[in-house]
Amino acid sequence: MSEKTLVVIALGGNAIKQAKEKGTVENQRRNVAITCEQLVKMNELNYKLIITHGNGPQAGSLLIQQEEAKDLVAPQPMDIVGAMTQGQIGYMFQNILQNYFMRKKKNIPIATLITQVLVKEDDPDFDNPSKPVGPFYTEEEALNLKETKGYIVKKVKPKGEKTWRRVVPSPEPYKIVETECIQALIDAHAIVIASGGGGVPVMQKADGTLIGLEAVIDKDKAGNKLALSVNADIYLILTDVENACINFGKPEEKSLGKITVSEAEKYLAEGHFLAGSMGPKVTAAIRFVKAGGKQSIITSLACAVDALAGKTGTIIVK
Amino acid sequence: MSEKTLVVIALGGNAIKQAKEKGTVENQRRNVAITCEQLVKMNELNYKLIITHGNGPQAGSLLIQQEEAKDLVAPQPMDIVGAMTQGQIGYMFQNILQNYFMRKKKNIPIATLITQVLVKEDDPDFDNPSKPVGPFYTEEEALNLKETKGYIVKKVKPKGEKTWRRVVPSPEPYKIVETECIQALIDAHAIVIASGGGGVPVMQKADGTLIGLEAVIDKDKAGNKLALSVNADIYLILTDVENACINFGKPEEKSLGKITVSEAEKYLAEGHFLAGSMGPKVTAAIRFVKAGGKQSIITSLACAVDALAGKTGTIIVK
Repeated sequence: MSEKTLVVIALGGNAIKQAKEKGTVENQRRNVAITCEQLVKMNELNYKLIITHGNGPQAGSLLIQQEEAKDLVAPQPMDIVGAMTQGQIGYMFQNILQNYFMRKKKNIPIATLITQVLVKEDDPDFDNPSKPVGPFYTEEEALNLKETKGYIVKKVKPKGEKTWRRVVPSPEPYKIVETECIQALIDAHAIVIASGGGGVPVMQKADGTLIGLEAVIDKDKAGNKLALSVNADIYLILTDVENACINFGKPEEKSLGKITVSEAEKYLAEGHFLAGSMGPKVTAAIRFVKAGGKQSIITSLACAVDALAGKTGTIIVK
Repeated sequence: MSEKTLVVIALGGNAIKQAKEKGTVENQRRNVAITCEQLVKMNELNYKLIITHGNGPQAGSLLIQQEEAKDLVAPQPMDIVGAMTQGQIGYMFQNILQNYFMRKKKNIPIATLITQVLVKEDDPDFDNPSKPVGPFYTEEEALNLKETKGYIVKKVKPKGEKTWRRVVPSPEPYKIVETECIQALIDAHAIVIASGGGGVPVMQKADGTLIGLEAVIDKDKAGNKLALSVNADIYLILTDVENACINFGKPEEKSLGKITVSEAEKYLAEGHFLAGSMGPKVTAAIRFVKAGGKQSIITSLACAVDALAGKTGTIIVK
């Protein structure tokens, strides 16, 4: 049997919940099914798959539920909430993907592994947290949470009744804690779902122990660490668009096809990619190739199979 | 290296949340730490461990939170809630157990695997659901939920303001879906946390696909299936008491030590064990030995290490 190509796929937010949807289980299952159809095609083209995904809307929903029920049920911190969403989203993918294979009478083991991701204590984001999470608050509510719970809160919308949100650090991922287990599952020919929501962020203390944090790791950056930790051949980042662009929204806008790491770094430095959106994806894609990965691809779900064949997408190579 | 003894441990509810506690993360982490101390001792005595656990209080909390926030966030069905609690509780065990090993400079991989458990369509419990879940309701609220959501509701307390609850089926577990993945992790010398909360209950349709259910599987019975599926040597069920008893609460009460399956079956048939409590544990313990397992043990967390050495606990053998 020839060696298969190992692909780590970072799914975009709309793989689970579209922006305008309410996030009912029917919505989410339908989106997951659409994604899984493409994953099945990749499996049939003989790619080995590891899947990672975001959890923003699901973690946000849990934080809102915790807030609404706070007089009845003790709210859990963000590391626990992150682990909950890994179970939730992982199960949906595991179940729905498996069902595609079952219909084809294929027995392919699929595993969702709860994943911790190590970050460093001296990460600058701990001094200046930037990632908004959970419900919107009035200024009064926000300042009260700052007072009573020590939350860092920021005004995130210019106007409206509830314009404040809690912000938490978004430190750089450093190491995937469960690498050995993920590797064991790949070796057993399983499709693995891991590091969901960027992983549960943990920090290492002097005695070696890992402490869960009230923080959120960028899922594309964590996906890069995941891809490197299992020596993946390709790191595939799925998003809303077929290609990353330079001069986005301008007359001279240009789609990027196959480019080198140096070209990508140049465009990134020139500020062609939005900080909260394409920027971290290009950063993660660059890092993968610079650290020894063969290629990173940024494209849309619908174009993923073609992009793996080199026919479309932004492909970053050495 | 000599062959290690493989033990599947089903943890009692108080391994995570004591009855009178509020279930804060501090409470839960402390209880998990107390449990992990004993698990570390077992590891040092050279037992290979697979851990399973209940999720009643955690699933109940999520159902209450969903209810309180239902106008803001779409509630998720029970299969999803079950998967969430697997992530939540698995992460706590994974993190805290690993930290014990880290302090001892031991690198032992630990994995939480989201687990589905197959049940059968013709299980009689689907016709007469008996397992209460989630919040208590007034009669009016309960009948409204019956009307609007099709819930089956029952009066579960004789008096008080809110005496009704939703009840769901508690079907018999038939097969652990993720057996291959669990086995791969054991083969890689990992400690595995699986089938939490009795597993996510799924039913198989004619086309082979697995459909998540609004149901709850007894965790000790699912633990038996888990133990059988990985050919465990010992199935260890932890509960509040050192031994199962016959004539419980009567003058002729007697602790059970080492007994045969036939003796256990006789006591069970005679009604010595409470239906909602010791009964399912003894049933699960009997099933394990009858299906080929070497021994089942029922004891408390504090006595678990001694019970593995044959010094205490109720030990059921062929």
